[in-house]
Amino acid sequence: MILTVTLNTALDLTYGVPELVPHASHRVSDISERPGGKGLNVARVLSALGHETVVTGFAGGSTGAVLRELLADLPSRAAVPAASGPAADSSPVADAPAPVSLPAPAPAPITDALVTVAGNTRRTIAVVDRTTGDTTQLNEPGPLVSADEWSALLARYEELLTGADAVALCGSLPPGIHVGAYAELVRSARAAGVPVLLDTSGEPLRRGIAARPDLIKPNADELAQLTGSRDPLRATRDARRRGAHAVVASLGPDGMLAVTPDGVWQASPPAKVLGNPTGAGDSAVAGLLSGLVEGLGWPDRLRRAVALSTATVLSPTAGDFDRAAYEELLPRVGVEEHTTAA
Amino acid sequence: MILTVTLNTALDLTYGVPELVPHASHRVSDISERPGGKGLNVARVLSALGHETVVTGFAGGSTGAVLRELLADLPSRAAVPAASGPAADSSPVADAPAPVSLPAPAPAPITDALVTVAGNTRRTIAVVDRTTGDTTQLNEPGPLVSADEWSALLARYEELLTGADAVALCGSLPPGIHVGAYAELVRSARAAGVPVLLDTSGEPLRRGIAARPDLIKPNADELAQLTGSRDPLRATRDARRRGAHAVVASLGPDGMLAVTPDGVWQASPPAKVLGNPTGAGDSAVAGLLSGLVEGLGWPDRLRRAVALSTATVLSPTAGDFDRAAYEELLPRVGVEEHTTAA
Repeated sequence: MILTVTLNTALDLTYGVPELVPHASHRVSDISERPGGKGLNVARVLSALGHETVVTGFAGGSTGAVLRELLADLPSRAAVPAASGPAADSSPVADAPAPVSLPAPAPAPITDALVTVAGNTRRTIAVVDRTTGDTTQLNEPGPLVSADEWSALLARYEELLTGADAVALCGSLPPGIHVGAYAELVRSARAAGVPVLLDTSGEPLRRGIAARPDLIKPNADELAQLTGSRDPLRATRDARRRGAHAVVASLGPDGMLAVTPDGVWQASPPAKVLGNPTGAGDSAVAGLLSGLVEGLGWPDRLRRAVALSTATVLSPTAGDFDRAAYEELLPRVGVEEHTTAA
Repeated sequence: MILTVTLNTALDLTYGVPELVPHASHRVSDISERPGGKGLNVARVLSALGHETVVTGFAGGSTGAVLRELLADLPSRAAVPAASGPAADSSPVADAPAPVSLPAPAPAPITDALVTVAGNTRRTIAVVDRTTGDTTQLNEPGPLVSADEWSALLARYEELLTGADAVALCGSLPPGIHVGAYAELVRSARAAGVPVLLDTSGEPLRRGIAARPDLIKPNADELAQLTGSRDPLRATRDARRRGAHAVVASLGPDGMLAVTPDGVWQASPPAKVLGNPTGAGDSAVAGLLSGLVEGLGWPDRLRRAVALSTATVLSPTAGDFDRAAYEELLPRVGVEEHTTAA
């Protein structure tokens, strides 16, 4: 089982409007509602890859109740029609690496182990301008979490770690949670011998790294904020020196750069793609974690992470991945080892 | 008891953001949540004026459940500290009309007689730019109401009419409700001998007027859309000829123009005021209906409606009215009778 922790879960609403005009009144033309927060997105992708997951974190109030109802429906929602293999018009490259063997694509269960809080789970609203395709995002801050609620989460987390093959700690902190919270969760995972991936930003990331997580997956902005450098290799190495055992930097259309104890790799999608990058980072986390649990080496983990995040950008639904595109892309992701030392 | 009907109730959310920038991501700095839809706003003001009200219409899903919880708290929410009389620095005008005697300001109960529907009650989101004070409005369309749900509403409405002194039919129609719905509700009220006020717009207003409601309260835009004229007196008379027994046009800062079987009156606030006009029309409806039920003549009803809507514009909370301002304004509203025939 893979455990994901989302301290600030969200009910993600998407509102389509014909055109967003500030200070005007708009009739929302279409609405979608889904359970959100990075760890829930990661769990959805892990489920689609056939990995059983347990999600914990906080949920409360009426919005928390809706989130949990939608979460209960998730494995069937994440279900995809059985893929008929690579698209017929794909052009296999003769010397492409052999496809990585995958678990069967039957979605695995997602278990709700969220801790109930008194406050209301936050809503996020993505207002999509249907004329330009641009999105304006409104994020509520989240419920104020009490000291007792945080203690309840810690107890639940310790208990869940005993059955976990790996754990992902994801996203922002809700109000009331101390900035060293992720550092505390990283230390518990390491004490329990469970590999831990940390995916957050700002001060919680800085503090969390110092607790020596197995892996962090910052994007270019998070990396620059952490290290002060926009040079990918320099910044990724610097991040690793701060305490993370391995750092996989996601560089958007340029793929991923991994600086690990076993070496340095650059993984690149076969071509640049156009689409909605929402959730691409969460798909990458799912790719890295599933590869770790399956015992794949770094090149295959990176190949999977890049193929999944590219297939997420290509999906018409924000945050989902396009299964056929994923299977077609997987053998075509290029992975190059850097000969310089990590 | 006064009955208000809100077919498309709403959970009204207000999001404060430091500055609204299209296509950017925003952290919401403050959130408020209240039960909305015009008839619920009217009921809140009637309650504050000491009039017992019953609200019906549709509510459903998780948002409907939150709306009903907030509605249950309303009489206490609408409670205002006992006013200490007109503000000390008010300058009473020697020849001002004598204040209209009012019921004691103890809030009266609001009874929830909403009909439960399968769909989700809509949310409306007012995004307030805290730099400029401007508001960008996002309105969900509302739940799809089935034929059975509409029949249930009709049965509930007929039953409630037997105990009603007056009824207000308010706001937009949710999806699935036929455009002649208000006309149907107007006819039932008239058959039951209950005075009926219709406050809607567009085609539902046009159809509703033909069923001969006792009173309509269009604003200048609604009146222009209905009659094609922007001349207040001409348009108001035209609206009356279409079937309404009386028409009170709300003309924003210019006050109200009433064309009735008893005469034509123009009521004006003592001075133009700056503030948020949200809910001012609903406060005017509450003023007109309470005055009708108390047996006041047209000049006193209009005085109350204008004072209430002006005190709503002045209130720091959108949709509430400022009790002290209301009491201070009431004797100072000017009402002038037109000598021309209605």
